[in-house]
Amino acid sequence: MDRLILHEDPRSGNCYKIRLTAALLGLPLERRFYDIMKGETRTPQFIEQVNANGRIPVLQVGDRFLPESNAACWYLAEGGPLIPADRFDRADMLRWMFFEQYSHEPNIATLRHWLRYVGEANLSEAQRGQIMAKRAGGEAALQLMDEHLGGRDWLVGHDVTLADIALYAYTHVCEAGGFRLRDYQAVCRWLDRIAGLPGYVPMD
Amino acid sequence: MDRLILHEDPRSGNCYKIRLTAALLGLPLERRFYDIMKGETRTPQFIEQVNANGRIPVLQVGDRFLPESNAACWYLAEGGPLIPADRFDRADMLRWMFFEQYSHEPNIATLRHWLRYVGEANLSEAQRGQIMAKRAGGEAALQLMDEHLGGRDWLVGHDVTLADIALYAYTHVCEAGGFRLRDYQAVCRWLDRIAGLPGYVPMD
Repeated sequence: MDRLILHEDPRSGNCYKIRLTAALLGLPLERRFYDIMKGETRTPQFIEQVNANGRIPVLQVGDRFLPESNAACWYLAEGGPLIPADRFDRADMLRWMFFEQYSHEPNIATLRHWLRYVGEANLSEAQRGQIMAKRAGGEAALQLMDEHLGGRDWLVGHDVTLADIALYAYTHVCEAGGFRLRDYQAVCRWLDRIAGLPGYVPMD
Repeated sequence: MDRLILHEDPRSGNCYKIRLTAALLGLPLERRFYDIMKGETRTPQFIEQVNANGRIPVLQVGDRFLPESNAACWYLAEGGPLIPADRFDRADMLRWMFFEQYSHEPNIATLRHWLRYVGEANLSEAQRGQIMAKRAGGEAALQLMDEHLGGRDWLVGHDVTLADIALYAYTHVCEAGGFRLRDYQAVCRWLDRIAGLPGYVPMD
């Protein structure tokens, strides 16, 4: 495989997904650090050379750049044990990864970012007006995961997949966004299961 | 392949993606209709039997149910010409599909839904407070696509892929959300290219 470089902010769960995927697969990954709070991913140089969308993470593969955390995880994992061999299960894994980006991350990761890093006092009126909806959306996402995990060990099939990694990233730190993990007991057991995987690395 | 049934609201671009993918591939697809404005995807029966997340589209494959539009497109297209053969390109296609669900759909599809179906006068204060941010986010997404498509025919590689289909769905009806397609000339040419594909079907 080409040389792999992760352009990241270590506080970002989206970046951590890629690092965890690489660690579980035993793939070497170089790291380049940016501070999103200082706008380091919005500089002309970053926009021009790394990601026109001005966001991290970006996985650099040789001289090509791949934005979007879940696409980067897919790239690393293709052909390996973190992607199910069954066609329906493979699509179902992607289902949970799209759920993560649409129904989980914009609620749970955004509240964590606002409350932990920006600070409630510094939020705009428009942001403040969204807190209740994001709280409800995040709780609904955690509830859905909890019910699904009630009778099973992993989100898809009978083994860990990228779906688990993608949803682990912001779920395991959701309390920084004001969510209560103890309300979701099946989720808690699943978090422990992931943290016990051989090769697991914690978030910085 | 198992019998394929699309659970959908025909006004939804997310549902249309799946129908367009099936049409381009020549796959037969039965259709079941729900009216999201009447809450028909939030009934106990729908939650229990079709999708615990209370959303359409859901692709039914035999007796299994697959939510999330882009995962359903992947299921239909796997092994066929709408997914690139190259490993990096395949991940790059997923990159645009995650971009669609994170940076495009929540801005462009949501404004279309609010302005065309809900009606501006019926929006809540919290929704009204998000219009400017969603306008800016949608314009940024269209601008990014326009620059990317400036020197190429398709989003990824040298042929149409699921990335084009996913982003076509809400882009080609974005004016209902108050966006101006004439500001994005490369996008307009790309929309024409998709509408000219053999097997193309329009949105209902």
